[in-house]
Amino acid sequence: MLATLIYGERDIRVEEVPDPRLSTGADAVVRVVAACVCGSDLWPYRGVVPTEEPHRIGHEFVGIVESVGDDVERIHPGDFVIAPFYVCDGTCVNCRNGVSTSCLQGTFWGVDDKVGGFADGGQGEFIRVPLADGTLFALDGQPDAELIPSLLALSDVMGTGHHAAVSAGVGPGSTVAVVGDGAVGLCAIIAAKRLGATTIIAMSRHADRQALAREFGATEIVEERGDEGVARIKELTGGIGADQVLECVGTKESMDQALRSTRPGGMVGYVGVPNGGPKLPIRPMFGRNVGVNGGVAPVRGYMAELLPDVLSGAINPGLVFDLELPLSEAAEAYAAMDERRATKVLLRP
Amino acid sequence: MLATLIYGERDIRVEEVPDPRLSTGADAVVRVVAACVCGSDLWPYRGVVPTEEPHRIGHEFVGIVESVGDDVERIHPGDFVIAPFYVCDGTCVNCRNGVSTSCLQGTFWGVDDKVGGFADGGQGEFIRVPLADGTLFALDGQPDAELIPSLLALSDVMGTGHHAAVSAGVGPGSTVAVVGDGAVGLCAIIAAKRLGATTIIAMSRHADRQALAREFGATEIVEERGDEGVARIKELTGGIGADQVLECVGTKESMDQALRSTRPGGMVGYVGVPNGGPKLPIRPMFGRNVGVNGGVAPVRGYMAELLPDVLSGAINPGLVFDLELPLSEAAEAYAAMDERRATKVLLRP
Repeated sequence: MLATLIYGERDIRVEEVPDPRLSTGADAVVRVVAACVCGSDLWPYRGVVPTEEPHRIGHEFVGIVESVGDDVERIHPGDFVIAPFYVCDGTCVNCRNGVSTSCLQGTFWGVDDKVGGFADGGQGEFIRVPLADGTLFALDGQPDAELIPSLLALSDVMGTGHHAAVSAGVGPGSTVAVVGDGAVGLCAIIAAKRLGATTIIAMSRHADRQALAREFGATEIVEERGDEGVARIKELTGGIGADQVLECVGTKESMDQALRSTRPGGMVGYVGVPNGGPKLPIRPMFGRNVGVNGGVAPVRGYMAELLPDVLSGAINPGLVFDLELPLSEAAEAYAAMDERRATKVLLRP
Repeated sequence: MLATLIYGERDIRVEEVPDPRLSTGADAVVRVVAACVCGSDLWPYRGVVPTEEPHRIGHEFVGIVESVGDDVERIHPGDFVIAPFYVCDGTCVNCRNGVSTSCLQGTFWGVDDKVGGFADGGQGEFIRVPLADGTLFALDGQPDAELIPSLLALSDVMGTGHHAAVSAGVGPGSTVAVVGDGAVGLCAIIAAKRLGATTIIAMSRHADRQALAREFGATEIVEERGDEGVARIKELTGGIGADQVLECVGTKESMDQALRSTRPGGMVGYVGVPNGGPKLPIRPMFGRNVGVNGGVAPVRGYMAELLPDVLSGAINPGLVFDLELPLSEAAEAYAAMDERRATKVLLRP
C-alpha cells in the first residue's frame, strides 16, 4: 500500500510500504477514507523536532473497517469509523476517568505498539489499529459524503477545541477569547458557542480565518497582539478580561497572551502542544487567581457528544479544511500548510 | 495604642503608635480581640523579603467595632467582626465574580489605602478598616469565647485551605492529597473532608501535626517526599495519583510534589504564596492533563458558607493555634513559629 513518510526537514514522500496485518486478536485493519495533516506534523516538517531516520507520519483519519481480530467485539468489518489521534483501550482507570490520552495500554500512531507490532501512521491507504474496541468510534451506517470532512475533524481538531473549552469551564453566558486561528482555534470557537458562550473574541490577523471565525460564532475579532491585544480584550470585557481564554497555539507568547487576557478568577484552557516547553509564570497567576487547565485532548471520549451535532449540521468543523489533495500529493499538503497557503489539508487515498 | 512593627530580620517590636481615626466616611475602627501571625509574615521575619524600613505587620484579626464612618451601612458599633486579610468593597465586578482579592478598590493592611490614609496592621490594639461595609463580616450577636480561635481562622487560613479545595474541584468521593502541614494545609484537610472527600492523604513528618491532620479528617499520612512521596501516593491511589492535590506551601519543591502526585486529568489547587516565583513546567502538565488553579484566596466570600460550621462545632480550625501569647510578646510569637516550636500563634491585645 501507499503511505506517507517523513525523511527530514521539508522532505515528505509517499511510498509503497507493506500492507498491515492483524496480529493480536484485539486489532483491526481499516481502509482509510480520508486523512489529514496536523499542525503538530509541521514541527518535524520544519525541523523544529529533528527526524533521526525516515518514519511514517500522520495521526488523523476516518475509514471503513476491513477486518478485525478474533477478540474484537464492538467493531465489525464494514463499519465506518473515526479514529482519535491515539490508541486507547477504553477500559483502564484513566480511560474511565475521561483521560483516554493517558490510557495505561495506550500508544500513538506510527510506532510499535506494546504487544502487536507496527500501528502505521494515519496518512496511508490502510492502517492497523491496535485495541480496536477502545480506539475506534463506529457510526451507525454509512455517512453522507459531504459529512466526511466534519467527521474527520472529530479525530483531532474539533475534539481538541472542545477540550480547551471544557477544560476552561466555558458555559452559558461565558465571555471567551480564543488565542490562535488555526484549525484548533477555529474549532474552539465552535465549541465555545456550542457550550453557550455569548461573547466570543477571536484573535486573528488573517481575513479568511476571520471570516470563518465569524461563521463559527465569533462575535468580535482582535488583530492586535501583546500589550495591545490584552488592552483590546479588556476593552471588550468591561475592563477585566475574558472569563475563559482558549490557548490553541502552544508558544510562550501565546500562553502569555492567554494568561494576561483572562480576568481575575478566570481560567485558561490550553491545548496548543507546548513548543519548546514554555514555563508558566506562577506569580501573576497566583495574584489574579487565573488557573490553567487542559492538555493533550482525550478526543475519543468527546465523539459521542459531538457526533449528533455534526450529523444534524448544527456544527460544521469540516470547513477548516480549505484544501483537498490526493494522498499521492501529501508533500504538497505539507508545503501548503507550512507556507500558510492552507489552514488544514484533507488527503484522500 | 500598641502595635507590632517589623524593623528587619528577626527584629519584631511592639510599640506605642498613634490611635487610628476615621477619615473617609466608609471606614470603621475596630478594637482587636484576637490577631495572629501568618506563615507569610515569616518571610520578612527571616529576611527572605527584605525590610527596607520599619513598618507595621499583621493581617489577620477579629474584633469589636468601636466606631464607623457616616457612609457605613451594614456594620455597626458593637458588632463582632471577622476581617479578611485584605480590604475589599464587595461591590466591584471582581468582588461580584467571587474574586474579592482582586477588588478594584481593594488594598492590604499596614499600608496607606487609596483615599483615606493608613489602614494599620492586624497585630495591634485597634485598626482602621477602609471600606468597612465590604471588608468586615459581622456576626449576629457575640460569640462564645471558646470560638474565638476558629473565628480568627476564618480571616485567612481556613478560608485559604477551603480555596485550595474549591479551586481543585474537591467533591463527594474525591481522593485528595495535601502538600504542607502548616496551618493552611491542616485547614485544607478540614475543607476537603467538609466537601466530601473520602480519601485524604496528609503529607507530614511531624507527629503533632500528623495527629491534628487525623483529627481533621486525614485518612492516610505520607512522610516521604520527592520521588518516594509520589510513589507512596500512587500506592494509596490505585497507581495513578490523587484526583486533587492541595498545594499549601509555595516552593518549587512543593509544587513539583503536587503536580507529580496528581492523577492524569486531575487538578492541583494551590494557595501557597509562591516563594521566589517558581515557574510551572508545562510539558508534564500538558501530557497528563493536570491543571493548576487557585491563588491568593478570596476568603471574605467564604465566611458566610463556613461560619455556620464553626458555630455548630462541625469544624474546629482554631485547633491550628497551638500557642497563645499577649500582644506584648509578639516577638516571641514570631520566634516560636520561625523555630517550629508552634504551628500558629494567637495574640491577645
